Amino acid sequence: MTAINRQILLVSRPQGAATADNFRLVQTPLAPLGDGQFRVRNHYLSLDPYMRGRMNDSKSYAKPQPLDQVMIGGTVGEVIESRHPSFAVGDKVVGVLGWQEFGTSDGQGVMKVDDAHVPLSAYLGALGMPGVTAWYGLNRIIAPRAGETVVVSAASGAVGSVVGQLARLAGCRAVGIAGGPEKCRYVVETLGFDACVDYKAGHLSEDLERATPDGVDGCFENVGGEVFDATLTRTNAYGRIAVCGMISRYDAQPVPLLHVDAILTQRLTVQGFIVSEHLDEWPNALRQLGDLVAQKKLHYRESVAVGLDAAPQAFLGMLKGQNFGKQLVKLI
Amino acid sequence: MTAINRQILLVSRPQGAATADNFRLVQTPLAPLGDGQFRVRNHYLSLDPYMRGRMNDSKSYAKPQPLDQVMIGGTVGEVIESRHPSFAVGDKVVGVLGWQEFGTSDGQGVMKVDDAHVPLSAYLGALGMPGVTAWYGLNRIIAPRAGETVVVSAASGAVGSVVGQLARLAGCRAVGIAGGPEKCRYVVETLGFDACVDYKAGHLSEDLERATPDGVDGCFENVGGEVFDATLTRTNAYGRIAVCGMISRYDAQPVPLLHVDAILTQRLTVQGFIVSEHLDEWPNALRQLGDLVAQKKLHYRESVAVGLDAAPQAFLGMLKGQNFGKQLVKLI
Repeated sequence: MTAINRQILLVSRPQGAATADNFRLVQTPLAPLGDGQFRVRNHYLSLDPYMRGRMNDSKSYAKPQPLDQVMIGGTVGEVIESRHPSFAVGDKVVGVLGWQEFGTSDGQGVMKVDDAHVPLSAYLGALGMPGVTAWYGLNRIIAPRAGETVVVSAASGAVGSVVGQLARLAGCRAVGIAGGPEKCRYVVETLGFDACVDYKAGHLSEDLERATPDGVDGCFENVGGEVFDATLTRTNAYGRIAVCGMISRYDAQPVPLLHVDAILTQRLTVQGFIVSEHLDEWPNALRQLGDLVAQKKLHYRESVAVGLDAAPQAFLGMLKGQNFGKQLVKLI
Repeated sequence: MTAINRQILLVSRPQGAATADNFRLVQTPLAPLGDGQFRVRNHYLSLDPYMRGRMNDSKSYAKPQPLDQVMIGGTVGEVIESRHPSFAVGDKVVGVLGWQEFGTSDGQGVMKVDDAHVPLSAYLGALGMPGVTAWYGLNRIIAPRAGETVVVSAASGAVGSVVGQLARLAGCRAVGIAGGPEKCRYVVETLGFDACVDYKAGHLSEDLERATPDGVDGCFENVGGEVFDATLTRTNAYGRIAVCGMISRYDAQPVPLLHVDAILTQRLTVQGFIVSEHLDEWPNALRQLGDLVAQKKLHYRESVAVGLDAAPQAFLGMLKGQNFGKQLVKLI
């Protein structure tokens, strides 16, 4: 067994945009397992926008990522050594073992998964936190009715792609917002959204107006800033807005919101949420999502960087929308 | 009986700030009553921030005020002539008869009230639309628990003053935001709020931080703009924000909101509402408010302009916060 673990630490906090200098790759000897512990060889690391928030030392729903420790991150992998009664060598597991090749765990927050019918990586995407995030925001906050229009930003991403497909299955008009013609084509042609607006094309408001002829009843917001503003101006009375991400806000400069008055004039409900606070909903959501994936009714796409060394650049690229689908790092 | 009615019409829409030129006083002969109609001599006209919104020709919850017609407005008065079976001469009534000395009605939206124990004007304030607005936003959206902190802007006004007093009665820390030391003193000393921050003093954020040592759990927003922003930065997890008014937004220039990310980081629920859409709640709310006024547990203050001619200037002054308490126009 390898006695060396490669890990990526957060070593400084961003001043403005995050950079590769905020991270450092280190090699650390693997300590022997204690009683009740097991070791996982991580196969995939998940890269997610929430990580940018953790890099700041600011008031938020989660404690900041501590400096000089392994960056937080969801992982899937295989148990390679165990002194834990419930985890055996060969078990496939999903957990939050961080940006490293080997994770050591006492089992907390680690779940065994079955990769017989679904690739292991899916448990970091459509059948993992992003999928449940989409499911929760759509069903518990937007609560769409057939015939309504639902808009989702970052529509080709791990969360947005599931939101729109679930909205379609609920009988809604699903409208995506994504960056560039290639992503927009994918959102409409592969994912089956009714329309997708390219926010990079330079006429977001006009294009969104054309894509939402009956206005907007539900909005799943992953981006914030001008994309959110454009959607606010299209809302109908009693619209529901699930605020899942503000990726445009993570770098220190706040992007102001202009059309706040729509909250009043349209009597909107705007609700922020964090899916990890609703663990009771996960089993039901995952069962539904698993069925849909098995029936090929729910499509997803992955963007895979190879090797732990590639993680920082892949992460920074994802913050700029350079990924296409769920961003993963393959570690083995 | 006077054969001439004096009325104020909206004759143009504001370009930016509203001005006196948007209004015109006219004299109109009173037409004879039709069958099923009655005539009211209006004693008081209510001036309210929502009227500014109606002056614009824009997408909102209500149709714009039509040009060259009598400005919309709540009124209290006395029936002076009747061909309606349910309204008799001498009845005191509250309704929405507009900016005019005499109103003619078929009874729709007009309610008889009892001024034996409460002055008639109260039915335009604490025992009218502003009071029910406060009651609804606080109880149905913020739903405060004892020990929580509730912040309300425009705290000395018709709505804000009721919000804070009800919050105190619910066992909360009530913190107001108002303009100038005199209003702040009134909010604390007469209305009994725990603290009041003067937004004109030039250090809103610091003062609000000091006034909310345990953060903010509920916010009743009447103003928008930087006052709303300052409150957002103080919110606790799962805070509830009732958006009742955006008075800072009525003049064409949008005031951007900067700290939108608090919606996500604190998992806030932000909800806009219009009290006239919740008529089923009015009887219960008015009964509670009436009891509190009768028991001297709910204080209110009025700012009274005299004569219909004074209405436009009083209205424009109110939009700038020059009123102190509920703004009325005495018409008799």
